[in-house]
Amino acid sequence: MWRYLKRLLIGKPLKTTDEGGQSLTKFKALALLSSDALSSVAYGTEQITAVLVVLSAAATWYAIPAAGIVLVLLFAITMSYRQIIHAYPSGGGAYMVATRNWGTSVGLIAGGSLLVDYMLTVAVSVTSGTEAITSAIPVLREHSVAIAIIIVLFIMTLNLRGMRESASFLTIPVYLFIILLVSMICWGLFNIATGKLSYAAAAPVGSVVPGMSLVLFLKAFSAGSSSLTGVEAISNAVPNFKKPKRKNAANTLAIMAIVLAGFFAGVTFLSYYLGIMPNSKETVLSQIGMSVFGHGIFYYLLQLSTAMILAVAANTGFSAFPILAYNLAKDKFMPHMYMDKGDRLAYSNGIISLAVGAIVLIMIFHGQTSLLIPLYAVGVFVPFTLSQSGMIIHWLRERGRNWILNLMFNFLGAFISLALVIFLFWLHFWNVWPYLLIMPVLIYFFYKIHDHYITVATQLRLRQEANLHQYDGSTVIVLVSSVTHVTTGAINYARSIGDYVIAMHVSFDTNPKKEHETANEFKESFPDVRFVDLHSSYRSVASPVLRFCDVIAKNSAEKNYTTTVLVPQFVPRKPWQNILHNQTSLRLRAVLNSRENIIVATYSYHLKK
Amino acid sequence: MWRYLKRLLIGKPLKTTDEGGQSLTKFKALALLSSDALSSVAYGTEQITAVLVVLSAAATWYAIPAAGIVLVLLFAITMSYRQIIHAYPSGGGAYMVATRNWGTSVGLIAGGSLLVDYMLTVAVSVTSGTEAITSAIPVLREHSVAIAIIIVLFIMTLNLRGMRESASFLTIPVYLFIILLVSMICWGLFNIATGKLSYAAAAPVGSVVPGMSLVLFLKAFSAGSSSLTGVEAISNAVPNFKKPKRKNAANTLAIMAIVLAGFFAGVTFLSYYLGIMPNSKETVLSQIGMSVFGHGIFYYLLQLSTAMILAVAANTGFSAFPILAYNLAKDKFMPHMYMDKGDRLAYSNGIISLAVGAIVLIMIFHGQTSLLIPLYAVGVFVPFTLSQSGMIIHWLRERGRNWILNLMFNFLGAFISLALVIFLFWLHFWNVWPYLLIMPVLIYFFYKIHDHYITVATQLRLRQEANLHQYDGSTVIVLVSSVTHVTTGAINYARSIGDYVIAMHVSFDTNPKKEHETANEFKESFPDVRFVDLHSSYRSVASPVLRFCDVIAKNSAEKNYTTTVLVPQFVPRKPWQNILHNQTSLRLRAVLNSRENIIVATYSYHLKK
Repeated sequence: MWRYLKRLLIGKPLKTTDEGGQSLTKFKALALLSSDALSSVAYGTEQITAVLVVLSAAATWYAIPAAGIVLVLLFAITMSYRQIIHAYPSGGGAYMVATRNWGTSVGLIAGGSLLVDYMLTVAVSVTSGTEAITSAIPVLREHSVAIAIIIVLFIMTLNLRGMRESASFLTIPVYLFIILLVSMICWGLFNIATGKLSYAAAAPVGSVVPGMSLVLFLKAFSAGSSSLTGVEAISNAVPNFKKPKRKNAANTLAIMAIVLAGFFAGVTFLSYYLGIMPNSKETVLSQIGMSVFGHGIFYYLLQLSTAMILAVAANTGFSAFPILAYNLAKDKFMPHMYMDKGDRLAYSNGIISLAVGAIVLIMIFHGQTSLLIPLYAVGVFVPFTLSQSGMIIHWLRERGRNWILNLMFNFLGAFISLALVIFLFWLHFWNVWPYLLIMPVLIYFFYKIHDHYITVATQLRLRQEANLHQYDGSTVIVLVSSVTHVTTGAINYARSIGDYVIAMHVSFDTNPKKEHETANEFKESFPDVRFVDLHSSYRSVASPVLRFCDVIAKNSAEKNYTTTVLVPQFVPRKPWQNILHNQTSLRLRAVLNSRENIIVATYSYHLKK
Repeated sequence: MWRYLKRLLIGKPLKTTDEGGQSLTKFKALALLSSDALSSVAYGTEQITAVLVVLSAAATWYAIPAAGIVLVLLFAITMSYRQIIHAYPSGGGAYMVATRNWGTSVGLIAGGSLLVDYMLTVAVSVTSGTEAITSAIPVLREHSVAIAIIIVLFIMTLNLRGMRESASFLTIPVYLFIILLVSMICWGLFNIATGKLSYAAAAPVGSVVPGMSLVLFLKAFSAGSSSLTGVEAISNAVPNFKKPKRKNAANTLAIMAIVLAGFFAGVTFLSYYLGIMPNSKETVLSQIGMSVFGHGIFYYLLQLSTAMILAVAANTGFSAFPILAYNLAKDKFMPHMYMDKGDRLAYSNGIISLAVGAIVLIMIFHGQTSLLIPLYAVGVFVPFTLSQSGMIIHWLRERGRNWILNLMFNFLGAFISLALVIFLFWLHFWNVWPYLLIMPVLIYFFYKIHDHYITVATQLRLRQEANLHQYDGSTVIVLVSSVTHVTTGAINYARSIGDYVIAMHVSFDTNPKKEHETANEFKESFPDVRFVDLHSSYRSVASPVLRFCDVIAKNSAEKNYTTTVLVPQFVPRKPWQNILHNQTSLRLRAVLNSRENIIVATYSYHLKK
């Protein structure tokens, strides 16, 4: 049944050769790779005003200069990522750029940050999307955690099916969002111009706000820097572009930056002009949409498209995480299972790990976007800093055409990213401290895993001739719990492989009569097989079995025999029925596997009914 | 390491013979068996007033008559449980009484209700205990779910250690609570008499309350019936009493009922007189304690002892659930694993299941006692009804001395319990409906499991002579993923047990050069072993392996050979390292176990470093 369910949800297996290259046009690439960046409009402005409004409503005018600085940063970071596109046309993920230029340790910091960050991308996008839904339909608000989890599971399922073939439909929500946001901003500005929307700002730009300080301003601005997340996506995906790859990628990045800048500026201005205050019940974007469009179809379309583009943004995490995990696994820093491709050619383990991580984050933070964002921003800007600074080293080494200019751009990018990291740790420490805990643990495990794989490989390698050995025979111990059809089959089999067969039974019944029952039954059915009855004063079967098998194995070795322990079990017709049986044989096999010189075999008797 | 941790938490294994009988004095029994009933004072009154206050503050005077009716019920139910003590001195759990008198199906309804109910006992007691703590220390309120979960895990650990030896210390919190509650009620009444506590009731008893209806009154009263939970505990534990068992048990029950009645009446009166209104931040008992004792040491002692007696009450669930699960498993209605005793003679699986169930309930209901209580009451009164009505049948059959009088008492008990069940379903339907969903599912599984065990037993039984068969030899297939020390060991072993050895490798590399590498390496090291290289177009190793092994097994069977598939694996030095390896061999073994005629053996190569 599980198999049918899996087929239904995941689809039928694909051949390895079905994997094809994809070539993205600029139009499609803009949609697929920019959803993460563009969707941050849904929470970016809100993050700034939410910090300012704590002081006073009047302080919210500072959102305008804060947004201005964010736009300058956007320009600088875009320019510096254009450098990466040109320098690493094979896809310049931060892990790769940092490893190449800074070395393994720094690369692992970047990689580890990104792993966590992709989980946060999913968590932030999905919770923010849920907020877009609950802003429009307030009755759903109390179920927001459940809604967010369902969305994550849904996106996970699509990815386990191998999203690739369905990629085209993902462009729809992105362009729908672009159309609606352009409409909202234009219609809003038009109505302001014609006086239909009245000026309602809490305080005019430039007015003196008591209590306002530089620290608060920096705090607001650094919170707003979350709008810059996702800018790196295009530079990671250069190989997927149509030729000329670099040029197309660089141009797409420029277009995206312009669209994002326009959206961010427009939303921040409208939010200021309409005097909108962030609150926990309705998002800022929803409030703007309501003011501009009124309570009608366009408002609901806006909310729907916001939720949808955020879902697409979450999906970018699902594309990026498994590939990063694959690369880390290939370099032996993560378990090899992240290299296994599933039936549908997706890296299932990476996809499932990501979904689990995101769901845990959503539950820990009760589905509140604003609590997740500072951590998210740190997870983004640390790898930004490392890859941009790595590019400085790159230019110093390569010294190609215009290298000084290129270096300057990357220096600017690295400097801004580093400053943002410092601001975030300084001003948002209480949201960001888990990063300081998670990263050392992750790096520690990366190295631990790496060491392990290296040690194992050396131990297993055949250095000279294979060490062939001719045994003289084999001893087989058959474990018997009661005398049934299973026992008969197991004994028959044991005789076919063994030169010497012993049956063994553990009894711990305090009733001595019953104790001998199994022995008598066995001797009656198999008079010429040696039967050993062990008595245990404890309830554990494992230790007496192990002790006995050790003795037999030692004797066998002296005779130059191998030792096999045969564990008979019956297989019920339906898999769920297994939990009703075989607990003991599972435990025994686990224990016996701890012995070098004992081979564990399982005889399975299949029940017909 | 896991092993050390387990030993530290659980203690060292005990011998089966260490299990001794215990004989409870009345003093000790009152503490150990009445904690569930007495602790319900912590929430009983609150349940009544919480329903009434929704109408108006004035309506809370109706708590006095509602409490009066609850006391009448307490008397009737106590009398009727005294009957059960005398009739079933070997311990008259509802499952047993209902099964004996009504038959299996009704018994299973009682048993299933109780299983759920014990989970609710734990959940309600622990959340209520947490509320006692957070009432005293408001800063902990936002962590109440976490606190409740930690308490459950703590009690679980104590029980996994085998609580028996530590039972004596459990009397301390119970008697501390009794002392503090007696003090509080007496001191409160004394202060009322001397006029130090002033009359603050919202409305005098008997005043007309607009909007008051019989339905609301019944709703309040049925919510208050949760105070009757736990009365059955003593009747289940008759065999543990000192001789004369029946008399001691019946007397202990009477004492408990009197204490409970006094507490319930006292708390309800004080709550009315002091005009206390339930709210979500502080429990009613805490408010009374604050008014009577003031904000001092006695108040905190009261809260502490309330939390502690509730923890002891939760512990009663941990004593009862595993024994009920054991009895159901013995009757083949639950998985056999509930019959396994752990190293410390406790039924570990039952204890862990209960803890998991309680934690899930706490999480679903966000640790709010009031949401859990109606469901809890249904889970209590359904088995009450079934066992009391079972007793009616019992008296009709037995007709001992005074049987008509006895029957009348049990009829009264059954009638009241049934009425409460009807009220709860009628008036609290939105809290209680999950019961209607859970029970049919549980009963269905009970029967499903029962059928399965019966079918299996018939199939396995040896009806005539054991069906001995002499094979002519054995074929061994060795799976090879790469040529290493593991392969060498596996091939050596395979030759010791097999008459015909084949090595098999699956390749799916699209690079044809690499594909032949393993084949060449193998042929070089083991020139006289047949090597088969299968190519798979899919990433799945399982299906080509299975197809190949099926063919070989068929050929072997024709030659009268057995077939063994040897899966080589290496065992890393530390258990956690297993997740870095062996995913494929695990999957292969699972798949191969589905074949009747194939025996799966595992060759384990142990890494030294």
